[in-house]
Parts: sequence; C-alpha cells; structure tokens
Amino acid sequence: MSRVTDDLNDVAEADEDLEDLALEDDYALNPEFVSDVADALDSGNAERLRELLSALHPADVADLMGFLSASDREELIPHLDPETLAEILSELDSEIREDVLEHVPSATLAKAIGEMESDDAADVVDDLEDDKRAEVMAAMPEQERAAIESTLSYEDETAGRLMQREFVAAPQFWTVGQAIDHFRREADNLPELFFDIYVVDPAYKPVGAVPVSQLLKVGRRTPLAQIMEPVNEITTDLDQEEVAYIFDKYHLISAPVVDPGGRLVGQITVDDIVGVIQEEGEEDILALAGVSDAGRDAGVWDIVRSRLPWLVLALATEAVAVQAIGAFQDEIAKLVTLAVLMPIVASVGGNAGTQALAVAVRALANRELSAANSMRIVAREMTVGLMNGSVVGLIMAGATWMFFQDVRLSITIGLALIINIFLAAVAGVLAPLTLERFGRDPAVSSSVFVTFVTDLMGFLSFLGLASLILL
Amino acid sequence: MSRVTDDLNDVAEADEDLEDLALEDDYALNPEFVSDVADALDSGNAERLRELLSALHPADVADLMGFLSASDREELIPHLDPETLAEILSELDSEIREDVLEHVPSATLAKAIGEMESDDAADVVDDLEDDKRAEVMAAMPEQERAAIESTLSYEDETAGRLMQREFVAAPQFWTVGQAIDHFRREADNLPELFFDIYVVDPAYKPVGAVPVSQLLKVGRRTPLAQIMEPVNEITTDLDQEEVAYIFDKYHLISAPVVDPGGRLVGQITVDDIVGVIQEEGEEDILALAGVSDAGRDAGVWDIVRSRLPWLVLALATEAVAVQAIGAFQDEIAKLVTLAVLMPIVASVGGNAGTQALAVAVRALANRELSAANSMRIVAREMTVGLMNGSVVGLIMAGATWMFFQDVRLSITIGLALIINIFLAAVAGVLAPLTLERFGRDPAVSSSVFVTFVTDLMGFLSFLGLASLILL
Repeated sequence: MSRVTDDLNDVAEADEDLEDLALEDDYALNPEFVSDVADALDSGNAERLRELLSALHPADVADLMGFLSASDREELIPHLDPETLAEILSELDSEIREDVLEHVPSATLAKAIGEMESDDAADVVDDLEDDKRAEVMAAMPEQERAAIESTLSYEDETAGRLMQREFVAAPQFWTVGQAIDHFRREADNLPELFFDIYVVDPAYKPVGAVPVSQLLKVGRRTPLAQIMEPVNEITTDLDQEEVAYIFDKYHLISAPVVDPGGRLVGQITVDDIVGVIQEEGEEDILALAGVSDAGRDAGVWDIVRSRLPWLVLALATEAVAVQAIGAFQDEIAKLVTLAVLMPIVASVGGNAGTQALAVAVRALANRELSAANSMRIVAREMTVGLMNGSVVGLIMAGATWMFFQDVRLSITIGLALIINIFLAAVAGVLAPLTLERFGRDPAVSSSVFVTFVTDLMGFLSFLGLASLILL
Repeated sequence: MSRVTDDLNDVAEADEDLEDLALEDDYALNPEFVSDVADALDSGNAERLRELLSALHPADVADLMGFLSASDREELIPHLDPETLAEILSELDSEIREDVLEHVPSATLAKAIGEMESDDAADVVDDLEDDKRAEVMAAMPEQERAAIESTLSYEDETAGRLMQREFVAAPQFWTVGQAIDHFRREADNLPELFFDIYVVDPAYKPVGAVPVSQLLKVGRRTPLAQIMEPVNEITTDLDQEEVAYIFDKYHLISAPVVDPGGRLVGQITVDDIVGVIQEEGEEDILALAGVSDAGRDAGVWDIVRSRLPWLVLALATEAVAVQAIGAFQDEIAKLVTLAVLMPIVASVGGNAGTQALAVAVRALANRELSAANSMRIVAREMTVGLMNGSVVGLIMAGATWMFFQDVRLSITIGLALIINIFLAAVAGVLAPLTLERFGRDPAVSSSVFVTFVTDLMGFLSFLGLASLILL
C-alpha cells in the first residue's frame, strides 16, 4: 500500500515538474518546452509527447500549436484526443485553426463541435471549407445544426454572433428555493458556468437579473422578483465594440441578448468580451500603423498583401507632397542648406500629428470625445499645437543660428516648425473626428491623411517662408 | 386609488423618457442631455438637476462629469448624495477625480470610502493630497484604515494593488450545504458579488475553487473537495499586464491572490481586468505615437508636458539623420531633383517600419512572439521587407522614368527604396524584440528608433547610390 502511494507521489511530482517546465513565471510557454515537443514529434516518441501534452491546459496546447512549425503541427493533430480537440478549437488563432480543421476527420469534428458552446461552435463551422462544412453539418443532430445555422445568420462582429444560446432563465413568480431545486434537477441541461439568472415575463422578455451569488445569500422563500436587479438588454444587431463598451462601463459579468421583439434569445458573458476588447485595441494599433493583422502563422504572401496597399498609398501621397519641393527647385539650387533642413520640419510635424491622432482615436474609442465636447477638445489641441510648435521652433532656431550663424535662416525654420506643428495638431484631431462623424472607423486611413498634411505643409511652409525671408 | 396609480405611471413614464434621452443607442451620453445638465447648473435649477441625475446609472454620472466644464462640475458636486458619490468615485478619470476629491468634505469622503471595495478605496485614498489624506484616514475605522494602508503598500500596477480583500473562502472539509448555510447566515459580511468560492487548507492556502453556479447544481451533501477545480494562483507582486494575460488565456472570472507564503489574501475579478486590458492597449497605442496620456480633462500644460519631450527627442534624432544630407550637398547642387525625391525614400521607409513595429508590439503583448519563434518571425519580416521593397521600388522606378526619362535616376530611387524598406522591416521587428529582451516596454521608444533608422538610411541610401550611379 505504501509502495503504491510512493509511486503515485513520484508520478505526481514528475507531473508537477513538467508543469513547471512548461510555463514560465508569467504563464507564457517556455521555449525549451516547445522544442521538447518538437523533438518528440520529430523522433516519433508518442509516449513522451503524451506526457508533455498532459502537463498543459487546453489553452496552452492551443498556444503551443502557434509556436510549432506547420509540419510539426500537422503531426501533432492525431495525438490529440477528441475532448482536448473540442476545448482547443475555440482557442486557436484563426489561420492555425483552418489548418487544423483540414486535418481532422468530419465525424470527429462533428462530435467535438457538439461539445462546444453555441458561439464557439458557430465560429468553427464558419471556418470550415464548403465541402467539409456540409459533411460536418450532416453528421450533427438536427437541433445543434439549427442552432449553429441561426447563429451564423447574424452578421459578423454583432451581439447575435457573440452570444451563446445556453443561458438560465426563471419565471417572475419563482422563489429562490424553487429556482435552486430546478437547477439541481436540471443540472445536466444547464450551461457549464453561469453568473446571472435572467427573470423573464410570460412573453419571455427579461425583466431583471439575479446574480448567482445573491441566490446563496437570501432565504429559500424569497421571491426572485424581490432580489432581481435591472438588466442592460443587448439587441442581437449591436456591434461587438459597443457591447464591449457597455460591459466595461457597467462592470457586467453577463448580459441577456434579445431579438428585435424583445424576447430573450441568448447571453453574452464577460470572458468573450475580454477577447473582443483585446481584438478592438489591436485593430486600432494596427490600423493607425496602416497594416491589417495577418496573424502569427500567416504566410509571407498574406503579410505582403496586408501591408503593400498602404505602402503604395503612402508612396502616392508622398509623391504628391514632394511636388511642393519641385516648385522651389530654384531656391534650393541657390541655397542647398534648404534641402538639408527641410526634412526636419516635415518629420517633426509628422510626429506631432501622430501624437494628436493617437490621443483622439483613443478618446473616441472610449466615448471620451464626442459631439458634447469636440469643440473644446479641438480648441485645446490648437493651443497645445501652438505651444509645442513655439518651443520646438525656438530650439531649432537657436540650433540653426549656432551652426549657420544666419538669423534669417533661423527665423525661417523656427516659423515653419510653429506653423507645421500647429497644423499637425489640428489635422490629428480633425481627421478622426470627421471619419467618426461619417460613421467610418477613425483609426483607419487617418494616419495616411495626417502624414500627407504634415509632409506637404512641412515642405511648403519652410520653402515658402525661405523664398519670402531669405532669398 | 386608481388616481394614484395613474400618477405613479406618469412619473414612471417621464423617468423612462429621461433615460431614453440621456443615453444614445450605443449607451454613449447624449450631447443634448449633457447641455440640459449644464443649463440646469447655470440657472441653479436644483429640482431639474435632481430629476436629470436620477435618470443616470452612477457610471453615467461619472461619464457626465467628464463632459462638463470644470466650473459646472464643481457646482454639481454638492448635488450628489453620499451613496452616489461612493459609487462614482471609482469610475471617474483620475484627473477629474482629483478635482472632485478636493471639493468634498473629509468626513463625507471617509464615509463614502468605507462603502467601497478595498481596491477602489485604496485608489481613491492614493489620489488625495497629503493633508486631506491624513484627515480622511483619521476619520475612518481602524480596520478599514489598516486594509487601505496594506493595499497601498503593494507597488502600482501589481496584483496586490489590483486585488480586493473581500472574498469567500471555505475549508476543505465543508459540504455544499454547510457552505450555503454559512453564506445565508453571514450574508451581510460577504462581498456584494462573488463568482468563485476558494477552498483553503488549514494553512489558508487555496487548494481549489468552486464556481458559484456549481453549488446550485449539486446536492447539499456533496463535499466541496469533490467539485472543486484547480486554481490559477496569482502572487501579489505579479504585474497587472500578466494578470490580464492569465485571465484572458484561461477565461477566468475570478482568481485568488496569495502572498509570498502562499496564503490567500485577496481576489481579482474579471471586471477589474477588463479595465486593465483597455488601459494596456491604450498605453501601447499612445507609446507607439510617442505620447503619454494626459487624460480627457487635462489642462493645456499637462498635455504639453506629455508631448513635448518626444517632439524634442524627434527633433534631435532628425537633426542627426539630416547630417547624411549635408554630406551630399555638392551632389544636390549638381542635381536638385535629388532633393525633390529623397523625402519619398525616407517617408515610405518610415511607413514600412511602423507597420512591422506595430505587428511586433502586438505579437509581443499577446505572447505570440517569444524566444521560441523569434528567429522565424525575424526571417519572415526580412522576406516581407524585400518583397514589399521590390514592388514599391519598381513602381517608383517606373514613375520616375515616366516623369524624368532618366534610367539611372529610376534605378537609383528603386534600389534605395528596396534597401530602405528592407531595413525598415528589420528595424521594426528587432527594436521591440531587443527592448523586450532587456525587460523594457517594447512599445516605448521603439518608434523613435525606427524612424531614426528609416530617415537616416533613406537619405544615405538614395544620395549614396546617386553619387555612385548618377554623378
């Protein structure tokens, strides 16, 4: 008996060591562990592989797949049992998931999808290629298939698409005790986790919500209607960015989703929202840099496609901006120093524009900037632009005087910097505000416009002033 | 009787109309409602003000304060009852909160802070000016004061600072029924909301967690130890960005926080994490743009201070980069067209660098880029840079030939673009990787470096090639 316990302890200890090896202190995958897995795959050591994988949470297996090469990943797929597969499918990056889905038999997939929540299941089905989707759908029970088709009928990035159809509702007239008894009886049919019970009227409209912890605090005879709180209903067509805003603002853990008739059809939980917030923040960073996300495992061609259009657009706007220089060729021929200094005005102006733009895009995303205060914010940007421009202009004028001992050249570049940094601040806030007003994403294409303005005006103001003051 | 009901209905309807007016469809505050509040404040109409405020959730009152002018806001403060004050304090933007705190009497503040969760209470106390902090702390019960002091002893942006000291723990040997009976008895001493019950051993180390919904599904005699799940323990010194990563990765709703000895001292809930994720995403956007957030209500001076250092740094690096142009003054004097075209090479290179940088910073933040795959990602960036450079170089060479009919000039600018876009991609991924390797924030200062490289190499490659090929 003691022998067996010792052995079990040894096994438990070995497992714990492996878990420690797998993840670094910040829960990122350890590169050594990743190469251990790759080695086990390359040498075909199924036993070692099983041992390594068993140390990982499904989310970490999904993460691991992202670090493996495409060929290692394909070899790994047959080693995953169907349950793990079901759990990791919703965690995988989209392009890796498409690859994995191609290598799993349709029957196995249909079973795995059946174990997932409706929103995750729909996402996976959506990623399948047409032939395979038909096969997988055919292999699923009628009810599941209908639920997935219904979820997919909502537009991408809306509440309808984000919601899960599994939720817990109770009629208005129930007591806490009736609710708890019902949950115990129906345990197998309830969602794995739930945080709020939606109280519905006879027309199935949500009239309130009871946090689950509240059920544990009050007596069994308390009517649900007495402890329920008002709900923030979300309609199926609401954009996911707005859903995230509501969750963040009101600190929601879950919220009921209603159809256009006000009937409860699903719920959104905060763990899905965490993903949405990550996504939307990333989209803004990438959009401001003029690049769409091709994903961790994207091929070179996908990445080229995600960046080239913006580079070509930048080339075109820059070609227009440098026309301004062309108009002043004679002046430059007379004083080559102008050519040396002019990029400074354009570049620092570009920096000032990027600053104003990033602040405005962030404020718009948080609803901190709206029609209610836009005039005030624009006026503030103008003041800031003027002040920063004056300081930078003064510094540059001083430096120019030190190097060239030319007062008029110093005044020229100082004034040009003031003008361009001022215009940069104005363009940086007006561009995203205007896009937002017309219902467009303020992060997309703002930066190309702002760079165009600051380059064009940088060259124009410096060379124009030079021809007035200097020559 | 029916008369009274009618009146009540009228009141209820008027309230609902006001709520509809207050918020737009996307739950953003309606600018009209904001100006209604400002009008009521300006005309001193306390009755109308009370009516307007009553239509708002505390989070919306906090939002409203951000849209009011500083003087309107000060006038509003006395109209807020202490409970509303307690609820909005943790919602306010930091600089607005500091302003509000100055205008609330210490005794009222002490009472309001007593009603807040320990993490929010500590944040508010931290924002108080020294004199006032001493007054407020003195007016608080000993136990609350000690809790706040202890929270403030953890470093900013760590789990210790983020956690709340209110949580629900149960000993290993309890059954579900014992737990529920305990909760009903101790309802007043429990946190307002909780999502997991932490099961602790005699040394108060968390050994598992039971989601609250699980308690409702199983019979009263089930031992907690039988239904508990493994926990992701978080240590008090973990950085909040890493805490957010763990919540996102494992879809956590709450997690126990332990001290260095492994003892349970608090919990972090996902609603706090939603705020952290927003914050970290915003910090990256702003850091990439070279600006720190001065906040919605920052004064002009605060904003100037948040932007000027980066502009001066940009000016300095640009001054170094344009030295390259100075070395080629003779060449430019011979062919002024060089001065016209050279900004294109620098600018498009800058765009390519920004793209690579944004993608790398995002991937690092998501732990999608690490030592485990950095070589592969850098190699991929080099390929992409070469391909994008070739396409853009070819387009520009063609355009140059069309305008100037000079084959050698076309070859010069085409080659310069290939070189600079390639170097931009390399710098864009290596700069943040290097910063991360040395434990620095990869978003901060990467962009200044990348712009420096692309400007310097843009001028050097174009003018250098020109002097070799053209002149």
